[in-house]
Amino acid sequence: MKRVKLVVAYDGTNYRGWQVQNNGETIESMLNRAISSLTGEEIHVMGSSRTDSGVHAMGNVAVFDTEARMAADKFSYALNQRLPEDIRIQNSCEVPLDFHPRYQKTVKTYEYHILNREFPLPAYRLNAHFTYRPLDIARMQEAARYLEGEHDFQSFCAAGAQVKTTVRTIYELTVEKEGDLIVIRITGNGFLYNMVRIIAGTLMKVGMGEWEPERMTEILEGRDRKLAGPTAPAKGLTLMEIHFKGEKE
Amino acid sequence: MKRVKLVVAYDGTNYRGWQVQNNGETIESMLNRAISSLTGEEIHVMGSSRTDSGVHAMGNVAVFDTEARMAADKFSYALNQRLPEDIRIQNSCEVPLDFHPRYQKTVKTYEYHILNREFPLPAYRLNAHFTYRPLDIARMQEAARYLEGEHDFQSFCAAGAQVKTTVRTIYELTVEKEGDLIVIRITGNGFLYNMVRIIAGTLMKVGMGEWEPERMTEILEGRDRKLAGPTAPAKGLTLMEIHFKGEKE
Repeated sequence: MKRVKLVVAYDGTNYRGWQVQNNGETIESMLNRAISSLTGEEIHVMGSSRTDSGVHAMGNVAVFDTEARMAADKFSYALNQRLPEDIRIQNSCEVPLDFHPRYQKTVKTYEYHILNREFPLPAYRLNAHFTYRPLDIARMQEAARYLEGEHDFQSFCAAGAQVKTTVRTIYELTVEKEGDLIVIRITGNGFLYNMVRIIAGTLMKVGMGEWEPERMTEILEGRDRKLAGPTAPAKGLTLMEIHFKGEKE
Repeated sequence: MKRVKLVVAYDGTNYRGWQVQNNGETIESMLNRAISSLTGEEIHVMGSSRTDSGVHAMGNVAVFDTEARMAADKFSYALNQRLPEDIRIQNSCEVPLDFHPRYQKTVKTYEYHILNREFPLPAYRLNAHFTYRPLDIARMQEAARYLEGEHDFQSFCAAGAQVKTTVRTIYELTVEKEGDLIVIRITGNGFLYNMVRIIAGTLMKVGMGEWEPERMTEILEGRDRKLAGPTAPAKGLTLMEIHFKGEKE
């Protein structure tokens, strides 16, 4: 038996998130079916990050165990033949049998995309949040700096989420403009439920001039979800990369 | 009565091209319906460029005549409320009653997008052609230079197309790499049927190393569609902009 690790890219538009649901297709259910039909085994993948409905990925990670003789690095090609166009395996390789994508220490990178212009562009309709209200990038960048480092991010965690600690470290949080697209890029050692989308919604409040960048300090210190901005829509969010500590690369 | 000009962006994936068809929705039919329902008149727009099924636009142009009292520049907002997310008016303004988007002299810009990497990325599945075969940009750029200027582009015109002359001028033809995306950008005073897609297919042949850049001379001089490369798939093509000569901008 071997354990195979998959790096998976997907457009989340047509799925009810990562995790298997009773009421519709998910990324996990599509992977389970493709791998099971390929190997003839009943496969249930273990995912690294349970992205919400509508959220996209360039590099989410899943593992599964198989008796199949196929070399681990060939699964990417074989599975892409069996998956729809909006899910594509980017890499497959063998990992130790005790490698678990959910409990391993990781560094994750997310991007949140905002299209900021007078009218929406159809080409961005699935992968970016649109607003016609002008956003001031310099203000957003200033606010972002308050969030970098180790903080208690309880104010940036969906109310009701149950976790041992809400302390996390953001290694880098950048805001950049590429034409009419604003790209918020966040790298950290772990993210609370909805954390990136709440950060995006909060930075937008600052970008619109409603809040001052310094308000980030108050929001962090207050440890109350009500202090932060709204949760920005799912479709603007993409899980870019998961790096497992100790992994050679 | 006034004539209103619309600049229209769309994702062509779900439409049978621009022009009204009996067997499915088109960009033109969607615009006709939206404008007719807004004004209460029976409106038939006149388009500038009849893009094929699957081709996208950032700035195609259409005009229509109306007795409606609404100011011309307000149509963009009102129509976007009545159009699906994959069609968005970018601008509306009044033009002289003799302005005709098909017979006016224009300069058009197209982009052809190629995603060139080992595996496809779902985020690009609708708007870029994918190939895993490595493309050499420098060779494509060299080949592109042969096509700039005034030439008889008969070899780059779909067989059977009926036009008075196949002489056209390409003002600029660039090939650039943005990450894994190759962007072919062409500006010219008019394009033959399938011309941009045949140019893209031909530049790919050169990029793959099958043809030498100098072969462009032979292809142009031979005036025979069979000499050029294949017609690249529609989904990689986007009509970026139409500039009408004499238009202030």
